[in-house]
Amino acid sequence: MIGGGWAAYFLARGYPVTAWDPGPRAEQRLRTVVDLAWPALTDLGLADGASRDNLVFEPELARACAGADFVQESAPEDLDLKITLLADIDAVTPAHVVVASSTSGYPMSDMQVRCAHPERMVVGHPFNPPYLIPLVEVVGGRDTAADAVAWASDFYRVCGKTVVTMDREVPGFIANRLQEALWREALHMINEGEATVEQIDASIVAGPGLRWPIQGPMLTFHLAGGQGGMAHMLDHFGPSLLSPWTRLVAPELTPALRDDVVNQVEAEAGSRTINDLIAERDAGIIAIQRALGRI
Amino acid sequence: MIGGGWAAYFLARGYPVTAWDPGPRAEQRLRTVVDLAWPALTDLGLADGASRDNLVFEPELARACAGADFVQESAPEDLDLKITLLADIDAVTPAHVVVASSTSGYPMSDMQVRCAHPERMVVGHPFNPPYLIPLVEVVGGRDTAADAVAWASDFYRVCGKTVVTMDREVPGFIANRLQEALWREALHMINEGEATVEQIDASIVAGPGLRWPIQGPMLTFHLAGGQGGMAHMLDHFGPSLLSPWTRLVAPELTPALRDDVVNQVEAEAGSRTINDLIAERDAGIIAIQRALGRI
Repeated sequence: MIGGGWAAYFLARGYPVTAWDPGPRAEQRLRTVVDLAWPALTDLGLADGASRDNLVFEPELARACAGADFVQESAPEDLDLKITLLADIDAVTPAHVVVASSTSGYPMSDMQVRCAHPERMVVGHPFNPPYLIPLVEVVGGRDTAADAVAWASDFYRVCGKTVVTMDREVPGFIANRLQEALWREALHMINEGEATVEQIDASIVAGPGLRWPIQGPMLTFHLAGGQGGMAHMLDHFGPSLLSPWTRLVAPELTPALRDDVVNQVEAEAGSRTINDLIAERDAGIIAIQRALGRI
Repeated sequence: MIGGGWAAYFLARGYPVTAWDPGPRAEQRLRTVVDLAWPALTDLGLADGASRDNLVFEPELARACAGADFVQESAPEDLDLKITLLADIDAVTPAHVVVASSTSGYPMSDMQVRCAHPERMVVGHPFNPPYLIPLVEVVGGRDTAADAVAWASDFYRVCGKTVVTMDREVPGFIANRLQEALWREALHMINEGEATVEQIDASIVAGPGLRWPIQGPMLTFHLAGGQGGMAHMLDHFGPSLLSPWTRLVAPELTPALRDDVVNQVEAEAGSRTINDLIAERDAGIIAIQRALGRI
């Protein structure tokens, strides 16, 4: 799914792509993923020279990597497999070429351990479908060179991606940790009979899910505090961090944490006043609902 | 914020609204919230006869409630305050009138304890801004009559809201539990220096936040498993529930839980194949990004 999505995206941006996958019927499955993605990519506009004909399926890993200017590993989420595969890729890829892993959560420090050139190994974590969701989280491991992290961040940006470069490894990176917290709470609720799958989806689709793509969760809460913004919000709703509203125990809302959050939100808001942000949010909610044909 | 948003919404739907708020400069603050919301509501289309002139500010609670056909309590989130206020409202509101609380998370069973007519007390939990976000979660307490829950659900639906009626009380209801899990994980990450506010917002805005308003988190993950759907997804990513990807410990993925999730997702998908859902998702992601002026 992820490797095929990447292949479709890179092809649409005009790059030639060589794919390797030892799985059964891999070439056919890959081409099906690319074909499914192509109408959306065409709708968005293909780069000059972009063509599905630029996709080559190569049965030999060494031949697939020999001429590569960049490698995007997207194997199943299994640490031992990733360690072995990255070492295999490392052995057959020119030493100056950056190798990125699509891993959903393993730190590169844990995966690069058997590479002769760990300095060019980075995480480049996309979101499904990689051909449409802009986010790529980029982070290196203990033995990764800062240059490789910078090169990968620049490369994805040139490709049209939105890059969040992390200074520090944390399992699951950023968006997956947030998404995983939501997902685990959802599984708990289903497990306890507190909500059905359909109620969970309906509550997000018609609820907070309409706000998140506009300003994200933090700036959204900045507006829950009225004209007082995040500071008022934390002072008003702070005690609810102690409520049993999720199974996840919250950190203590120390004055330092409160101030960090308030200051960083205000920095993010920049010159936009609360009323500017409200107008931006409201226009966004209406635009999204119109775009989805709901109003 | 919430009461003012409700007032604006009900006014836009053509209802007369009587507001009561003992806070300082309450009437002025209320009218400011309504004025801020009015352009968006006008853009969406006002009901016949809808006017901000239909808003009356009433200094006496008894006079505000005496002629009401419905009461929406939206006081600050403080349990003792809510208990007292609902009892006060109960004492001055005709006994057949349904009273809803906008509480973000208190179970009605804990709030209706001093009411003479607890049977008409329901939770009607909106999302900020209540004049634009469709979701209202409706649930009764131990002493609430099923009729009152049904009446409130119908009333909000007639008003144009998307209603999720819960059979069972759970603190935080549904969407807030999911949102709160994400929020708490975000606070942990900020507290530990793992991510900044801006990185958190960017990762959601350009990442999973683009998928959630289309199909919700569960149907979204149905598509992470390729043609195998949720079943393949759980079998492939199930072990990651044990990963330290969030501070929230996941439930054990028992065969029963796995089957519940798979069966309920398939029921929600209905006649839509995986490829139908992929096409729906892809069109939605493109539409949202275009609507937000990002592509």
